[in-house]
Amino acid sequence: FATSSSAIRIGLIPADGIGREVIPAAQRVLEALPNGPKFDFVHLDAGFEHFQKTGTALPQSTVDTLKNECHGALFGAVSSPSHKVAGYSSPIVALRKHLDLYANVRPVISVKSASTPNQKELDMLIIRENTECLYIKSERIEQDPKTGLKVAYADRKISEYASKRIGAMAFNMALTRQKLREQKPLAQRFWKHAPRVTIVHKSNVMSVTDGLFRETVRAVKESNPELYSGVDMDEQLVDSMVYRMFREPEAFDVVVAPNLYGDIISDGAAALVGSLGVVPSANVGDSFVMGEPVHGSAPDIAGKGIANPIAAIRSAGLLLEHMGHTAHALAMYDAVNAVLADASVLTPDLGGKSSTNDVVEAVLKHL
Amino acid sequence: FATSSSAIRIGLIPADGIGREVIPAAQRVLEALPNGPKFDFVHLDAGFEHFQKTGTALPQSTVDTLKNECHGALFGAVSSPSHKVAGYSSPIVALRKHLDLYANVRPVISVKSASTPNQKELDMLIIRENTECLYIKSERIEQDPKTGLKVAYADRKISEYASKRIGAMAFNMALTRQKLREQKPLAQRFWKHAPRVTIVHKSNVMSVTDGLFRETVRAVKESNPELYSGVDMDEQLVDSMVYRMFREPEAFDVVVAPNLYGDIISDGAAALVGSLGVVPSANVGDSFVMGEPVHGSAPDIAGKGIANPIAAIRSAGLLLEHMGHTAHALAMYDAVNAVLADASVLTPDLGGKSSTNDVVEAVLKHL
Ligand SMILES: CC(C)[C@H](C(=O)O)[C@@H](O)C(=O)O
Ligand SMILES: CC(C)[C@H](C(=O)O)[C@@H](O)C(=O)O
Repeated sequence: FATSSSAIRIGLIPADGIGREVIPAAQRVLEALPNGPKFDFVHLDAGFEHFQKTGTALPQSTVDTLKNECHGALFGAVSSPSHKVAGYSSPIVALRKHLDLYANVRPVISVKSASTPNQKELDMLIIRENTECLYIKSERIEQDPKTGLKVAYADRKISEYASKRIGAMAFNMALTRQKLREQKPLAQRFWKHAPRVTIVHKSNVMSVTDGLFRETVRAVKESNPELYSGVDMDEQLVDSMVYRMFREPEAFDVVVAPNLYGDIISDGAAALVGSLGVVPSANVGDSFVMGEPVHGSAPDIAGKGIANPIAAIRSAGLLLEHMGHTAHALAMYDAVNAVLADASVLTPDLGGKSSTNDVVEAVLKHL
Repeated sequence: FATSSSAIRIGLIPADGIGREVIPAAQRVLEALPNGPKFDFVHLDAGFEHFQKTGTALPQSTVDTLKNECHGALFGAVSSPSHKVAGYSSPIVALRKHLDLYANVRPVISVKSASTPNQKELDMLIIRENTECLYIKSERIEQDPKTGLKVAYADRKISEYASKRIGAMAFNMALTRQKLREQKPLAQRFWKHAPRVTIVHKSNVMSVTDGLFRETVRAVKESNPELYSGVDMDEQLVDSMVYRMFREPEAFDVVVAPNLYGDIISDGAAALVGSLGVVPSANVGDSFVMGEPVHGSAPDIAGKGIANPIAAIRSAGLLLEHMGHTAHALAMYDAVNAVLADASVLTPDLGGKSSTNDVVEAVLKHL
């Protein structure tokens, strides 16, 4: 990197709506970490609002700065235009591709509190393939010359290359999670069995593409029996996965899925832990990590100061975790869990009356 | 039709696993309808077990008999081989295509009972496009000449033709449901607003294919303002749909979706009403209807006599409803709802101890 300082340089891309409120919140928590690393924050543009102002949703300078000057990034949320807008394309999908952030890592963990005694126990890590499937955006439209009616096609790509590296990520994370549980049994960690990887697919219909995904991920375990023999492996058809996740969420440890299924499953899992406002993600590549809350830009509450900052704070924790600063990440998770368990300072999405700022203050107190 | 009798001729295709238990159960209820029509049942082969015995999953004779001799059909469930089996292809997907059953109509309705007082109120009709999307099974696999690694592609097709007719089905069913609610306010019907159609898509990523689906369905309403002005219209991205469905299931009336999203959403909705064992579907074409429970062949409980027959019985009701025998269909729904509300005779999937046969007897008593 061109930077000579020893600080960790983080690109901040709040983008649209509540992204502008939750990214600064996460930044404050990072800056307050006791004995934490020194951070250098770089503010970068992207998003639908930026597109409306400038005609580009993802400036080349943002990509270049991330690639050449940053160790990692935090992305806020992006608004989706409800109508097709010529020239607009989702900047988050583009960033994942440009930086080869091939894994979208989404832990979904329930927190019991006095106010949610019936909360199901959930301690699941969704590993979503982040570069291909229908997200390659290879689409075309034709007009039937006879009827004049339109017919559109999209290509869905599943490669052995991408399936293998996402499979390896899933098995490795299953082992890492186990190690962390042994080292530091967090109060709020529920998985109590041998590590397990559940492969999600729909190979009963897409025998070629999902068949390749399924076989390639299975082969990861078989290719290294010494390393992975302690990791159980099973599978679920995607429709059945959504059903089972709601009926028996406690049956899942690490779940690995092609891009679109992973997108859908993680929103479903978020519903099980009370709010999208608490579910974080990290877009992980071999040399770059970008934290990103799973929620959207929430235009209905943007600017009101009541957005839940927890997903963004946890995403900053994931960023540190995947950069190797595990102890600091755990400190952030513990602080957030303490606030959730206490349940007296919660934003409206969780049934509370507190503001974004109140929640940040509460988290800082528990650091 | 070649048949000269005035009976309604129904093809029965139990196929695999518990399909062999629940289809006869549904048949018994049809036969017991007070002042019901005369039925002629034709037993037909299909399924994975049939494939293993004969090398074909869907005999041409089954298709021909359905097309040339039957007024409608009931399909049980089909087992999916866990590994790719050369020459095997899902008979249910093929039947939908051969008979041009372009709409998969899936009502998901909660029933309150003493044993489920906290059951959320849900009265949703999922209209799933049934002929295209990734289900066209146009897939190919290549090998990268440099790396030797495999790359697979699937085509996803969305046509204006299919989107328009599924959109029309959605708006028409929204009106039909309203009419039925006015005519005969069932105790267990919860939708209390103006009829509403929610369009599910992911046009923020697939702007061309899902964009076409979205625009075409929207155009259905605009094309006939006189007929559809009383039907509200909104939309949900598929990931957000799964989230919202679990948080506010009472917000949905008719939901229309491309094939795969519809598949996933309906399993999710089933989790909200207690069991896949109660959710029916009808595969509807312009001149043929095939009832089909949403559940699978459940090899784990097959042959034990404890499969829940309710999804199959409701599917037989849907078959009658879509053939125009609405009063008989409502009688079947009422009988099933009475058994569920009473909650003393339930199969194990609903927490009960009763057998398939016990539930059939209970339904017959309420007819
Ligand atoms: C905004 C959208 C393109 C994105 C996705 O589908 O990946 C979002 O839903 C997510 O989950 O990060
Ligand atoms: C068995 C399978 C091919 C089928 C589908 O995906 O359509 C099933 O899940 C269903 O919902 O009817």
